[in-house]
Amino acid sequence: MFEIISLKNGLENVDGFFFDGVNSGFKKEGNDLGFIRSDEPFNISAVFTTNKFAAAPIKHFKKYPPNFKSNFILLNSKNANAMTGEQGVADIDELFSSLATKIKLVNPIMSSTGVIGYRLNKEKIIAGFDKFNFACRNSNAVATAIMTTDSFKKELAFKVELEDGKSFNIAAICKGAGMINPALATMLCYILTDAKIPKDDADELLKEAVEQSFNTVSVDGDTSTNDTVMLLSSQKAAYEKTAFKTALDMITKQFALMLVRDGEGSSKVVCFEVSGAKTQAQAKKAAKALSNSPLVKTAIFGEDPNWGRIASTIGASGVECFEESLVIKYDDVLVYDKFNPELDKEREEKAHKIMQKDSFKISCDLGMGSAKFSAYGCDLSYEYVKINADYRS
Amino acid sequence: MFEIISLKNGLENVDGFFFDGVNSGFKKEGNDLGFIRSDEPFNISAVFTTNKFAAAPIKHFKKYPPNFKSNFILLNSKNANAMTGEQGVADIDELFSSLATKIKLVNPIMSSTGVIGYRLNKEKIIAGFDKFNFACRNSNAVATAIMTTDSFKKELAFKVELEDGKSFNIAAICKGAGMINPALATMLCYILTDAKIPKDDADELLKEAVEQSFNTVSVDGDTSTNDTVMLLSSQKAAYEKTAFKTALDMITKQFALMLVRDGEGSSKVVCFEVSGAKTQAQAKKAAKALSNSPLVKTAIFGEDPNWGRIASTIGASGVECFEESLVIKYDDVLVYDKFNPELDKEREEKAHKIMQKDSFKISCDLGMGSAKFSAYGCDLSYEYVKINADYRS
Repeated sequence: MFEIISLKNGLENVDGFFFDGVNSGFKKEGNDLGFIRSDEPFNISAVFTTNKFAAAPIKHFKKYPPNFKSNFILLNSKNANAMTGEQGVADIDELFSSLATKIKLVNPIMSSTGVIGYRLNKEKIIAGFDKFNFACRNSNAVATAIMTTDSFKKELAFKVELEDGKSFNIAAICKGAGMINPALATMLCYILTDAKIPKDDADELLKEAVEQSFNTVSVDGDTSTNDTVMLLSSQKAAYEKTAFKTALDMITKQFALMLVRDGEGSSKVVCFEVSGAKTQAQAKKAAKALSNSPLVKTAIFGEDPNWGRIASTIGASGVECFEESLVIKYDDVLVYDKFNPELDKEREEKAHKIMQKDSFKISCDLGMGSAKFSAYGCDLSYEYVKINADYRS
Repeated sequence: MFEIISLKNGLENVDGFFFDGVNSGFKKEGNDLGFIRSDEPFNISAVFTTNKFAAAPIKHFKKYPPNFKSNFILLNSKNANAMTGEQGVADIDELFSSLATKIKLVNPIMSSTGVIGYRLNKEKIIAGFDKFNFACRNSNAVATAIMTTDSFKKELAFKVELEDGKSFNIAAICKGAGMINPALATMLCYILTDAKIPKDDADELLKEAVEQSFNTVSVDGDTSTNDTVMLLSSQKAAYEKTAFKTALDMITKQFALMLVRDGEGSSKVVCFEVSGAKTQAQAKKAAKALSNSPLVKTAIFGEDPNWGRIASTIGASGVECFEESLVIKYDDVLVYDKFNPELDKEREEKAHKIMQKDSFKISCDLGMGSAKFSAYGCDLSYEYVKINADYRS
């Protein structure tokens, strides 16, 4: 048995790491450059975007040998350093050459988020290095440095108390907002722990956690070039696999929901639960189709219980299904089954009420088998169009 | 050799058919019920939606034996008669029982478009029958009867003059607007001809024409339950396969572009041309991904030459590609290749100017092979959100 206790603040709760964020002139106000580092190199497990045009920082990371340890992650927003070719990777090495005159670096890593297609402004970034306080432990400073169109900062921290009286801490920061997608939600996420977690466990548990959290959410179905989730461990505290898995899943699931909640222009979080599918893959396909359909998303924005769009999207998704076995509910209100094909005024009014809530569930039982998948999505609003039509200006 | 001459008006140009449209009280104003009929039964080739929840009229059609002839198509808007089960099909039979008291019917067909999930109001429709003039040849009346959120009526007509002095005519009506999709653009389209086209040719040429026209366009990536394209031939005039194919392709391609032009809230038509792909399937996958990406569509709405979203969408689409071999152009303006990774002010300004046009081309050469596909799409505007958030009210 173990106990998980929620902690205040963020990364400060994990000993052995230092972090800071500064303004280096890319954002008009607020931090845009940050770091996470430790004196002793930390273990790293990472999951990256499936986008074929992975950004330069990801290519740079992949040049290191398997199971390498690092002592420094450099983070920036406003420029993704994507589609910048070999020069984009060389730019990172140049930055680290400069940074190495200030602090000892072991296999340093960079992560970037922002606009695609521009080289980094190295001069500005190097000037920013002068503002870094390498002894700083300010989680807020680094969490805000990676924000782009995020409307709120995303930090979580837990203490996990094990049966034997020992414990470990786990804390994380995350950014999201746009390009939230089917393959890995567009985002950066850094999870720090002092737990003595073996590398194999870290790789396995991180992969599982991402699949059950970030990979279930969608804001717009677009997969970014920069998605990155990293788990860093200082190996200084206790460890127990089940307890660690539980805490890690809690963090990634909470962040995943925060990403949808903070999806560009999003005003509602909707869980699309598809059950009764023949296979898990089909359940996922149908659930993701629902969370990505513009017609479903606009109906949610309009709070219109137009379940026909739900049915049509499932029918178009390519999964095995029959009109006769389909059942659709909004929370606990039945809106369609073969015995109640038409939505009467009373149920329509109830479903409309449910849609006025901040978050609710649309569940579809295909009646074909026993596989199930829940995807999380949001509405498509005027604000989404506004944010994305004006993004670079 | 043959010559194709554009004709004024619509279906009136094809002898042997009658058509009318009336208001039966579903729309506040304008026609909502119509028919296309002939005295002698006509040949029919049809292509339907790939949506698994095909609407009742499509199920009703499929009950007839292969190669059946019909003499009557009943058309209505405002109600899709989809997700209405066996009753939805039975309703169609009931309508035809009533209609048969007014005019002789041979294997009558129905097509519907509108909201999903409600039974047809048979009383109103039957009352509407009284307004039909079965001797009428008013193409405008029937073309407007199938319109839903369409902002303009879609009619085309051509005379095809063959070498031997003989000729045939071909004319068509079409409706589109929302749920325009990857598998078969959401739409109804009726193509009438007096050509003596063999049934096998008609089936083959219609399938090819749809694949190269409607299946290349997308407004929102949603596949409707009611998509229907029909080719009706009275067999009274001349026929020559190449000439017919040319005219048929012209009609379907022009309609496909009209659907995008009239896409809900659309202000621009964009051709997404993907070339240099390893296979045709990959070219199509990448081109369709571009035409369906919310981030690409909002950038087009904002007239922002943010080619990074184009690259990111291709990278996420799952096709084989490398950053080093990719070339992106907006019309003839190069915005990205490995030698020009960064968009300078001059080219950015040129690309921005191109995006201010009503229609333009975004071409992506993957540099991996020789396969090519062009998909047509539109921007994602406030108006799209408005139309679809308010659709049923």
